[in-house]
Amino acid sequence: MINLHALYTFIDLTGTFAFAVSGAVAARDKGLDIFGILVVSFTVACGGGIIRDLCIGAIPPAGLSDWRYLTIAMIAAIITMSLGSLSKWLNRPVLLFDALGLSLFAVSGARKALEYGSNNEMAILLGMITAVGGGVLRDVLLNRIPVIFEKEIYASAALAGAGVVVMGAYFGWPDDWVFPAGFLLCFILRILALYYHWELPVLRKKKISE
Amino acid sequence: MINLHALYTFIDLTGTFAFAVSGAVAARDKGLDIFGILVVSFTVACGGGIIRDLCIGAIPPAGLSDWRYLTIAMIAAIITMSLGSLSKWLNRPVLLFDALGLSLFAVSGARKALEYGSNNEMAILLGMITAVGGGVLRDVLLNRIPVIFEKEIYASAALAGAGVVVMGAYFGWPDDWVFPAGFLLCFILRILALYYHWELPVLRKKKISE
Amino acid sequence: MINLHALYTFIDLTGTFAFAVSGAVAARDKGLDIFGILVVSFTVACGGGIIRDLCIGAIPPAGLSDWRYLTIAMIAAIITMSLGSLSKWLNRPVLLFDALGLSLFAVSGARKALEYGSNNEMAILLGMITAVGGGVLRDVLLNRIPVIFEKEIYASAALAGAGVVVMGAYFGWPDDWVFPAGFLLCFILRILALYYHWELPVLRKKKISE
Repeated sequence: MINLHALYTFIDLTGTFAFAVSGAVAARDKGLDIFGILVVSFTVACGGGIIRDLCIGAIPPAGLSDWRYLTIAMIAAIITMSLGSLSKWLNRPVLLFDALGLSLFAVSGARKALEYGSNNEMAILLGMITAVGGGVLRDVLLNRIPVIFEKEIYASAALAGAGVVVMGAYFGWPDDWVFPAGFLLCFILRILALYYHWELPVLRKKKISE
Repeated sequence: MINLHALYTFIDLTGTFAFAVSGAVAARDKGLDIFGILVVSFTVACGGGIIRDLCIGAIPPAGLSDWRYLTIAMIAAIITMSLGSLSKWLNRPVLLFDALGLSLFAVSGARKALEYGSNNEMAILLGMITAVGGGVLRDVLLNRIPVIFEKEIYASAALAGAGVVVMGAYFGWPDDWVFPAGFLLCFILRILALYYHWELPVLRKKKISE
Repeated sequence: MINLHALYTFIDLTGTFAFAVSGAVAARDKGLDIFGILVVSFTVACGGGIIRDLCIGAIPPAGLSDWRYLTIAMIAAIITMSLGSLSKWLNRPVLLFDALGLSLFAVSGARKALEYGSNNEMAILLGMITAVGGGVLRDVLLNRIPVIFEKEIYASAALAGAGVVVMGAYFGWPDDWVFPAGFLLCFILRILALYYHWELPVLRKKKISE
């Protein structure tokens, strides 16, 4: 039998690594200095989880109090910075890492919210917030409109993944089936959206002056 | 006698609807996709209240845990999106809705803060933060300087409305007089400011290069 | 013997004043109205501390519930606005004030986090967040990339100052030595970085199109 607590932690730390890489690449592309890259990496990796922890009353937030998150984020950022000259080949792996982090955090975020007594609606919302929060903070800090609002299916994939976890808890399905299912649904949706450029409809063209 | 708790809830939900409409219009004008519009609507409608709830320790925040807020915000966003072709006539109603949300949230925010044991200063500040927080988040997400800092009297109207509620509690005036008074003061100030283009003085012209 | 609690409060209020001045200058330069300047001043002065208080569970946050913070921030903003015509001479004093606020908040933030039971890593992180949080919020609200990510050694100086406080607590060194030492390390690092234009390396030139 799988040790579930260890599994949760592993999922969370893998997501942290994946998001830290995506934050480091974005920060480096904006010309930030080394420390700025480390800060943005950490913010992307842990920001969503910290917002979730504040909302469910999990004080102190694990992203701040558990040294493993900080360590993993720093390692991911340093690896990314060292691979600078390879960056032209990095675009697709980064999208993959980002999709990985998204799916892992959607599942682990919804599950932690349920564990702290959130109702179903709140657990789904917080799963999504955990998954996309870091990326939104990254884009706010780098002074652009969060890509999640404009790009291919992204937050909606996280919503679907979190939904599976909450549904599983509601119907009492076993976690070792529900978690992989939620993860896979989110991941596959996101990858297909990237591959086929699935987009949600836009209602009005962006004004040229903006 | 008016059932006060039902009144509070009604005020809050009406404000939620009003702000969600204003968020949906702003997001659509920026060219966001449907899901982005839903997210921005929800953020504008519930963001201020969530910040307030975190600051007064009302965990979990009502905006996340009470399904009615999410539902109302989604309905408002969907109605707004369906009225797309009417949008050229929507500018003035949106300002009206926004003024309505501002006044309702200033009153309900100050009152909830008092109920959770805030002192007078904090209740006034949190009334204002509840009222303007959503709009500030909207503008941060849409990558522009929050209009509340540049436009006609806005946050100062919310401050006045919240001040009436706190003063009423301090002097023990009855809520069914104080709430309408706070609401009306804020609403009338805001509408007059819009109508007559009242503005607070600016100390220095904006640099052209910015 | 120094009354430590009074000292902490004095440190915090001085930092509040220093940051409120820097916020008021930035807001005025962006062309915000008077109320916008007051709001940005208060946000810069108290934003970092409020984020820290939310993360350590110090509810309500002192920046909102203690009237002295608001009062000091308002006084600082009003003084800054009154000195409008002198602003061409204000650039260097503002940098000085900012360095002062940074060093004071790094020390007081780390110490308050420890007092609320944070572990060492979290106390260092929260010392830094207290010190730089207000400035990051200022830049996000004024719609630009936070300068702390691009400029001379800034957040890293705060990290060093907070580190001294945490190390002092770990080894049981007396507070009346540790606090000045942490403050001075951060302050001197920052001033030297400003004077000699010390910068952390950048890995990639900013793209021209951005």
